Amino acid sequence: MTKTNLMDQLDWRYATKKMDPSKTVPEDKVDIILEAIRMSPTSSGTQPFEVLVVTNPEKRAAIRKVASDQAQITDGSHLLVFAAWDNYTDARIDEVVDLNVEERGDLPMLHAYYENLKKSYVPRDAQINYEHAARQAYIALGIALVAAAEQEVDSTPMEGFDPAKVDELLDLKAQGLRSVILLPLGYRDETGDWLLPMKKVRKSRETIVTRID
Amino acid sequence: MTKTNLMDQLDWRYATKKMDPSKTVPEDKVDIILEAIRMSPTSSGTQPFEVLVVTNPEKRAAIRKVASDQAQITDGSHLLVFAAWDNYTDARIDEVVDLNVEERGDLPMLHAYYENLKKSYVPRDAQINYEHAARQAYIALGIALVAAAEQEVDSTPMEGFDPAKVDELLDLKAQGLRSVILLPLGYRDETGDWLLPMKKVRKSRETIVTRID
Repeated sequence: MTKTNLMDQLDWRYATKKMDPSKTVPEDKVDIILEAIRMSPTSSGTQPFEVLVVTNPEKRAAIRKVASDQAQITDGSHLLVFAAWDNYTDARIDEVVDLNVEERGDLPMLHAYYENLKKSYVPRDAQINYEHAARQAYIALGIALVAAAEQEVDSTPMEGFDPAKVDELLDLKAQGLRSVILLPLGYRDETGDWLLPMKKVRKSRETIVTRID
Repeated sequence: MTKTNLMDQLDWRYATKKMDPSKTVPEDKVDIILEAIRMSPTSSGTQPFEVLVVTNPEKRAAIRKVASDQAQITDGSHLLVFAAWDNYTDARIDEVVDLNVEERGDLPMLHAYYENLKKSYVPRDAQINYEHAARQAYIALGIALVAAAEQEVDSTPMEGFDPAKVDELLDLKAQGLRSVILLPLGYRDETGDWLLPMKKVRKSRETIVTRID
């Protein structure tokens, strides 16, 4: 198989366990990673999540305390917090319609499409809608991991935290948001990270892919 | 902001509405996309999903019928079906442990880690575990979209299908899998796709990113 840039990036990246606290990710690189998140596709273009970029040391120290004391949160220079919509609402979808009208013109099919979407999403249970929104954030997470690797920035996706406590620390509930994943950005500690020298483990192609020809 | 390869790829790609049925994605390109999916990171390295690559015309026609008759399913040449584990089980996690032991050696901390994981995951409600597994598939989906764009292959992520019917058509339930997303691969119909000339719509940076410095 031809080696592609993406494959090299997926090889290079790993869930960094020890970041070097003396190094800071330059803002232009953070910007590029955020731009990749912004451009990530989502279901019906709703982009049903936000990203908080936390550099504030006290805030990060507080988040680390409710995230199994994972040191990358404070050893990295930027902590991205992906926070998904807690529910789909008419108002939120109307904002998506307004943006579409602004960019593409006032097309009747556009209104029809989103009216249908509102009818199917809004009456659903909030938890179902939140789960759907969270999945969209995970698309952006996947793309953010590639963007970081392209910039040779290390990152560590983290699910091991208390979401209710992070929501409280970042005042997310009042904004109708729920934290779904943390992504510290920083630089690997080349000598101090036990995971770095280990072989990357992935299932074989045969284990995860089935052809139906 | 410097334009990166990834940004160009995110610009180039779009949820292709009309694919050219006369064109076939070469197998080496499909392989590269599958390799990106295989290398995608997942929570605790569990890779809790599989991918079915459906080229069989009858099977794709049947799936199209339970997927709002979306033509890309049969106009594309390959249909990827991401199917997540319906639950976490001791046996499934033990397989992950075995693979890790094989690749990294029989490290005590490895066993301790996954014993903890089993204790926390296995007793949970199956639906919660499935949702967690589905999110991991969405990381791979995000990365697959980049891989396809890098290969200049078009793709259309689709949630609009009847998952129970797709599970039945592909006999997924017996394998403990549930379909989460469809991704037809093919080539855009340059003249026939109404979406192609339209401007890409994304929220502003200010709308989705908040700094906490």
